[in-house]
Parts: sequence; structure tokens; C-alpha cells
Amino acid sequence: MASRKVVELFYDVVSPYSWLGFEVMCRYRHIWNIELKLCPAFLGAVMQKSGNRPPGMVPNKFKYMGKDLSRLAEYFDVPLKPPSDPFEVMFEKGSMSAMRLVTAVQERETGGDKQVEQVSRELWRRIWSEDKDITQPESLSEAAKKAGLSDGDVQEILQMYTSQPIKDKLKNTTEHALSYGAFGFPMIVCHIDGKPEVFFGSDRFELMAHCIGEKWLGPQPDKSAAKL
Amino acid sequence: MASRKVVELFYDVVSPYSWLGFEVMCRYRHIWNIELKLCPAFLGAVMQKSGNRPPGMVPNKFKYMGKDLSRLAEYFDVPLKPPSDPFEVMFEKGSMSAMRLVTAVQERETGGDKQVEQVSRELWRRIWSEDKDITQPESLSEAAKKAGLSDGDVQEILQMYTSQPIKDKLKNTTEHALSYGAFGFPMIVCHIDGKPEVFFGSDRFELMAHCIGEKWLGPQPDKSAAKL
Repeated sequence: MASRKVVELFYDVVSPYSWLGFEVMCRYRHIWNIELKLCPAFLGAVMQKSGNRPPGMVPNKFKYMGKDLSRLAEYFDVPLKPPSDPFEVMFEKGSMSAMRLVTAVQERETGGDKQVEQVSRELWRRIWSEDKDITQPESLSEAAKKAGLSDGDVQEILQMYTSQPIKDKLKNTTEHALSYGAFGFPMIVCHIDGKPEVFFGSDRFELMAHCIGEKWLGPQPDKSAAKL
Repeated sequence: MASRKVVELFYDVVSPYSWLGFEVMCRYRHIWNIELKLCPAFLGAVMQKSGNRPPGMVPNKFKYMGKDLSRLAEYFDVPLKPPSDPFEVMFEKGSMSAMRLVTAVQERETGGDKQVEQVSRELWRRIWSEDKDITQPESLSEAAKKAGLSDGDVQEILQMYTSQPIKDKLKNTTEHALSYGAFGFPMIVCHIDGKPEVFFGSDRFELMAHCIGEKWLGPQPDKSAAKL
């Protein structure tokens, strides 16, 4: 058996396309011969430092994105629904606290990343499905509890997530993303024969599979496998 | 047999992603139960009127696009190679004359769109494979001849392509694209049960196939079919 390829997934819960990419990669991590590394990072800094601007700033693109996301959500089977005020959610409230929380969860977790996965998913569910806040401590606490963390764990994480080491860790992961040429999320970096191959967005899975020598079975591989 | 779905493909030969989309749709027009309509339009006006700006303006995005295009070109089997000065080709020289030429070819052609297809392909080959000019009349004439048009046909088209009716026709197709919410090309509009479903880019074919009730066999369906 060939050694597992390391695949880094950079994401931010403020980004709906990241949610799609995240769910697909979580489905494929046990199908493809890969070692998936979840890399929670801060999209706001990536946009600013790369000089990119959100696609939603162009009215036709913003309208299209809504339609595109709802079609993809159905096809990918991810319960994504736009919040009532996407601009407020994405550009005014943002995701810095939420991504610090995920970073704290990651810092604390040992022996895997189940908690990071679950907490990330619950945060996405809040903003991109249930139109709920993810900036206040109570919101973050609720998400962490729903993700299955104990009251003690949640308390500890809420004490950690605004500390300097956690701020620095999030900053470092974000810088790491920028070092690969990030200009948005999700960004997926596949390490092939010692070289990083970078894929941006949630629409390069078929090409990615081709590049890493795996088979693309669609965004719902379990369903496809059942059909084969 | 269900009636064929009308699929409009809006494109401009200045756009490399349009080339990929064009070749894929030309391959699938005889596999899927669709009536493909080639809609040559002017990307410059779409970008301007939608307030969009080219992705190449963000340095990290520009670098990624080069890598992305070369990977996709190989996977799609399209001989796409970046010109020595992409900025000059795309933003200084542009494609207005070339798209007027394609429009003139379309205006003249009866009983199909073989000539429109071939001339478009030869223009793409010039700028996006052979690093050649597509702005001068001699360049356009060369492309049309290589596409199989007779000397007489080429002469007639070169007399037509700067005329007011051709300018107006190109403008109308471009306005038609904008009426669907265009902000870039390629844009593919599938008419399903009397409603237009709009897909932007060359990375929604799998989703598009799902929406029109067809099967996606990858960008090289003949190869996939041979493998089945």
C-alpha cells in the first residue's frame, strides 16, 4: 500500500463554499488513501493580505452565488441556507471569535480531530443554516456543547480562546495558507511527491482526484458506492 | 424520447476558461439530449456593465489561474498554453474584432454552426495556444481559412464584420447574456421546463448534468465511454 498523501484543508466557517468543501473532504478522508489535516484559519486576513475582494461585491455575482449555493447544497446534501442578512454576517460580524474557538479546540484535542470537525460543523450550521449568531461567547458555548463537548471542556476552551497563544496559532495557520498563495477559502493543498498542489474552491474535486490518483464518486460517495 | 433541452453557451475567445467550456459542450452536444446554441458575445462589455473585474488583478489569483489552467488543459485535453504576455492579450488588445468576425460567420452560416465552431476554435488556438495575434484583419483571415472557409467566404466575411448590423448583432447577444445576469464567461444557460438555469464557469458540468437529467462522464466522454 502506497503511503497516505497528506491533504491540508484551509477553511473558515464564515465561508459557505468552505462548508461544502469541508463535508466532501470529511466524506472522502476514509475512502481515499489520504491523511486529511483540518486547518482552521481566518479568511478576513487572507482576503485583505492577498488584495482580493469578496465575490458578493458584484451584484450579478452575488445573485448567482445564492442560486449556485442552493443548487450545490442540494446536490452535495449539506443543509445550507442563506442567512437573512448575508452582508452583516460575512462582513460586519465576521468570524474571528469563531475561528479562535475552533483553534482552541484544536490546541486542546489529542488523538484525532473529531472535536474540531464537530465544532466547525456546528458553527457552520448556526450561521449558514439556522441564521444564528457566532460572535458572542454564549453562541460559541452553545455550538461547542451541541458538538458533544462536556461542560468542563467548554468552560476550559472559553477561557483559552482569547489568549495570546491561540491568537498566534490562528495567525500562524493563516500565514501558512498565504504562503501557499491563498486568496480565498476553501483551499486544499495536496502533498504529492513532496510537492504541494493547491486547489481553490469546492469545484476541483474531480481534478484533484485525478492528480492524487484516486477516483471521484461525486459529492455523496456513499450514495454512489451504493449505486455501483 | 423527451424533447431536446435548449442550452445556450455564451463565450468569448479572449477567455481561456471559455475554451475549456466550449470544447466540453461541443463533445457533449451529441451525447446529451440537448440542442446546443453557440452564442459568441463580447466579454469586455459584460465585465464593464456588471462591474466585475478580471480575476487576474489579484496577484495570488493570477498565479493560481496559470497553474489551474495548465492542470485543467491536460485533464480536459485542450492544447491551452498561456501567451507570453497575458495582460497585453487580454486587456490591451482584447477580442472585439475577433468576436465581430465570429458573429459575421454566424450571420452568414446556414444549416448548422460548424463554421462558427471551427472559426472560434482557430481563434482560441491562435491566442491561447500559439501566442499569435487575433486583432488584425490578416490574423482573422488566417484563422478563418484554417477553419476551412473558402477564399471567397473569407473575403465576404471580412467585408461584413465591421458593418453596423454585425456590430449590433454582437451587442444584442452580449445584452442577452447580461439579461441572464452574466458577470463573466463562459456562461451556460439550460432551459428546463421553460425556466433558464444559469451556470457560470467550466466547473459546473457535473451539477449541470444532474440538473438536466443527464450523466456526467468527465471532460473527455469518448475516453470514458471507451473505458466503460
